[in-house]
Amino acid sequence: MSTHVIVLNGGSSSGKSGIVRCLKAVLPRPWINMGVDDLVDRLPPSLLGSGSGISIGQGGEVVLGDEWRALETAWTKGVAAMARAGARVIIDDVFLDGRDGQERLRGHLEGLDVLWVGVRCDPEVAAGREIARGDRAAGMAALQAETVHAGVVYDVEVDTTHAETLDCARAIARHVR
Amino acid sequence: MSTHVIVLNGGSSSGKSGIVRCLKAVLPRPWINMGVDDLVDRLPPSLLGSGSGISIGQGGEVVLGDEWRALETAWTKGVAAMARAGARVIIDDVFLDGRDGQERLRGHLEGLDVLWVGVRCDPEVAAGREIARGDRAAGMAALQAETVHAGVVYDVEVDTTHAETLDCARAIARHVR
Amino acid sequence: MSTHVIVLNGGSSSGKSGIVRCLKAVLPRPWINMGVDDLVDRLPPSLLGSGSGISIGQGGEVVLGDEWRALETAWTKGVAAMARAGARVIIDDVFLDGRDGQERLRGHLEGLDVLWVGVRCDPEVAAGREIARGDRAAGMAALQAETVHAGVVYDVEVDTTHAETLDCARAIARHVR
Amino acid sequence: MSTHVIVLNGGSSSGKSGIVRCLKAVLPRPWINMGVDDLVDRLPPSLLGSGSGISIGQGGEVVLGDEWRALETAWTKGVAAMARAGARVIIDDVFLDGRDGQERLRGHLEGLDVLWVGVRCDPEVAAGREIARGDRAAGMAALQAETVHAGVVYDVEVDTTHAETLDCARAIARHVR
Repeated sequence: MSTHVIVLNGGSSSGKSGIVRCLKAVLPRPWINMGVDDLVDRLPPSLLGSGSGISIGQGGEVVLGDEWRALETAWTKGVAAMARAGARVIIDDVFLDGRDGQERLRGHLEGLDVLWVGVRCDPEVAAGREIARGDRAAGMAALQAETVHAGVVYDVEVDTTHAETLDCARAIARHVR
Repeated sequence: MSTHVIVLNGGSSSGKSGIVRCLKAVLPRPWINMGVDDLVDRLPPSLLGSGSGISIGQGGEVVLGDEWRALETAWTKGVAAMARAGARVIIDDVFLDGRDGQERLRGHLEGLDVLWVGVRCDPEVAAGREIARGDRAAGMAALQAETVHAGVVYDVEVDTTHAETLDCARAIARHVR
Repeated sequence: MSTHVIVLNGGSSSGKSGIVRCLKAVLPRPWINMGVDDLVDRLPPSLLGSGSGISIGQGGEVVLGDEWRALETAWTKGVAAMARAGARVIIDDVFLDGRDGQERLRGHLEGLDVLWVGVRCDPEVAAGREIARGDRAAGMAALQAETVHAGVVYDVEVDTTHAETLDCARAIARHVR
Repeated sequence: MSTHVIVLNGGSSSGKSGIVRCLKAVLPRPWINMGVDDLVDRLPPSLLGSGSGISIGQGGEVVLGDEWRALETAWTKGVAAMARAGARVIIDDVFLDGRDGQERLRGHLEGLDVLWVGVRCDPEVAAGREIARGDRAAGMAALQAETVHAGVVYDVEVDTTHAETLDCARAIARHVR
């Protein structure tokens, strides 16, 4: 049996996107990526910065409303359907409520062979990278760095604090069947 | 019954993306967009410019290989599953083989209430807009302008040659239930 | 004597950027562009959304502070120096205070052969295009559409309301020596 | 006397852009950036991939033609003029011919207080980051990693191989007067 889905969970600025690009370059078969940011990118204006959609507070905290939750559920069911139809999919996600987020996603991915990957990064280092990338709300990285991993169970964990992105991707790739 | 999916079909540089942004702004309920370009954007490097994936010739012609076709099928099944799970989805597509492309998509969307929209633009005008946007291979617009509509049946058609993007979106919105 | 500088003045969403791309494609000699947006793009975070730098109000009004004005002056002197050193430069600008903006720029460009171009667009049409592009504060287009031209004198004027971007560029190109 | 210009020299994917963003965030006074990539970004289509402009070979080698050299000289004179007019400017550059590149730039910046900074990165690490960013020609990072520093004299050097971007920026900032 071969891996159908790779789930990367980690806080903002922990280095998930770079790992995704490296995975797509080093894995022998073709993989596509469908992350939570991709859903955010295609929200209508009415759901951005609104109580019913998604908004980001002054300190970098993410607030989710009912419309967001409904859309995210439908989105995730669709991504699971892509995988069931034969697409190899990398999901990069941020489990804002840790273990509960994993359980919801696990439910949607039932029947698929999933590789669960934790992407860790020291909170202070992630906060510095948040400044260096320059396109994220200040504070998100530090807030999310540890909470997103609370109670989550992984098949493999990488830590980008001292390891290069490509090396993390190679470590993950060794677990892909 | 309310509209589940809006399909926009038109050639490169016919104005689909602008219409999508306007639709998301003017439609009263939240819609997300999932177009063929979104799949292209997430292909692994091995499928870009390759015979098995997608490549663009010197004259702007698009060549699709087996890996692309398999991925596109899985992608489309996933998008349909999103819509079945309650997400309102705008699909902007380019039916390179006209009517056959519509029939394949129609098959995937079975059971959903679909609004089929043709986005037309005079080939010469589209070619000029291709230069003005500056990020597309020269020749695609003219090549696709008419062929993508061959044999395709629409619920509503708009023509961006002389109409503003927002007005086209409003004309489409009047057909959304 | 040949044209050293092309200045395009027009409100937000009037179509300047598309005309710039077309001019660079159709003019026989190489031209580079250096617009006011390029300065905004490279401001430090402390000057974005701040009273001393540049900020955009709820209704789309642009507010400029002292640090902005000092930087813009230095920037413009530098762009003029590029042109004096032989680079052909297209400046796309927004004369928020109309004629005074032109006079300040004229002072910096002394000794250079400048083609002054007005880019007009019906305010309502520009406001619609602002929605279609989706990356500008709502209201800017309508606010600026007419005020930026107050008292400004042009060598050539184009109106993107009904004319294609490429055709506007060609009309301008005929005045370039 | 205070620093007018910060020059960062380093190979492709050595981490210059991240350092620039951090410098703009941590330096107490406002700085803008004007790098060689900014000139590349505004070249007309006729100079991209052409013998007279700039082109990138199969192995990632950069080839420069006469039109490029003329434009780059004019561009650099303009950037120097911005600094002389009071703008604090960070120039991020790639001295493809090492010491000669520095001497040419030094000539243009005469009379200005310049902080010369070397940005080093282990070639293999830079090559890995080239894959992770996913938007550069394969091979550039390794080719340039050491040659760009040949014979160049610096006021301060940083090495991003093991140091965080923000820490490198802070080390540089301590030398800014």
